[in-house]
Amino acid sequence: MQTTRGQRLTRAERRRQLVELGLEMLSSEPRELVALDRISEVAGISRGLLFHYFPTKRDYHVAVVEAACARLLERTEPDPGLSPTEQLRAGLDAFVEFVRENEELYRALIRGAAGADAELEALFERTRGVIARRVFERLDAAETEPVARNVVRGWIGYVEESTLDWLRHADFDRRALVELQSTALESMLAASGTIIDR
Amino acid sequence: MQTTRGQRLTRAERRRQLVELGLEMLSSEPRELVALDRISEVAGISRGLLFHYFPTKRDYHVAVVEAACARLLERTEPDPGLSPTEQLRAGLDAFVEFVRENEELYRALIRGAAGADAELEALFERTRGVIARRVFERLDAAETEPVARNVVRGWIGYVEESTLDWLRHADFDRRALVELQSTALESMLAASGTIIDR
Repeated sequence: MQTTRGQRLTRAERRRQLVELGLEMLSSEPRELVALDRISEVAGISRGLLFHYFPTKRDYHVAVVEAACARLLERTEPDPGLSPTEQLRAGLDAFVEFVRENEELYRALIRGAAGADAELEALFERTRGVIARRVFERLDAAETEPVARNVVRGWIGYVEESTLDWLRHADFDRRALVELQSTALESMLAASGTIIDR
Repeated sequence: MQTTRGQRLTRAERRRQLVELGLEMLSSEPRELVALDRISEVAGISRGLLFHYFPTKRDYHVAVVEAACARLLERTEPDPGLSPTEQLRAGLDAFVEFVRENEELYRALIRGAAGADAELEALFERTRGVIARRVFERLDAAETEPVARNVVRGWIGYVEESTLDWLRHADFDRRALVELQSTALESMLAASGTIIDR
């Protein structure tokens, strides 16, 4: 991203730019939040002005995580032109690619945030909620059925963990990973049907 | 737990007592770390003495998480007298019970810790590693096979998420949850066999 020293931006543009910068720096820098000093330096604004846009470090943090969640949802948006099975695979493939490209960001913020902060946890919960709803729309099934809801929520946890394990080891084919993830949903839902009917 | 004001304890006993107190207070108090002031008050020692046992707040935090992980592993220890399938169900049942009893602790520390702190994340990783190893021993299978390792790691994520979802909603039978969790492992491993053989 180009620096914009001296450039005049509207408030909304400036906020967007600062969030964008945070996303970029956090994608490549491990673990800790990028120092606000560096953000303001790269953005070409004073630290005081940064606080004008984001009154606390936490406000800034929440805005960056929000942008990361929005980007994840956008990248994994289903293509209605595909069949339900193809939509699922395309979505999983895009998810794996997003986490691969943004591994540090994903680990440090999106996952690590949960538990540490109620607002960030709610944000992440909403994101998982959108993913679950997409699965239910694809299945043409009711999200309100408790066992099915539980299976889909659990399956999202499986997809997240298996993707992080796959990135850590990188020892088998990515298509096999996506195949495992989509097959797992089908067999888990099939098994849950038998359990409900029992 | 009784307070022990004035009681003389060895260093190891005192550390154990303080960790035990932390576990207890954290099981019932949501989200944030229990204030060290209250820990030292309940333990009947000065804040200065608390710092003698745990030089920083983080040292104390790590010790409490370590104890929580050890307790989780102990509670879910497989009984070699049971068949492999029964061992799996008994372990899952004990896991669900542990998380139910310690929901706040589990959410705030064990899960939330990951991502925020490399040492805590490593601790949690080791705990999941022990659980994965138990699954492989039960299966009499090689943990070194990449796809099987990935499936088991992902399945642990599924068990964690489905347990938290079940606790949040409490809208179906606990036996059904354990049945779903054990069946999922079997069907996912069966499916992964087909994928590897392809």
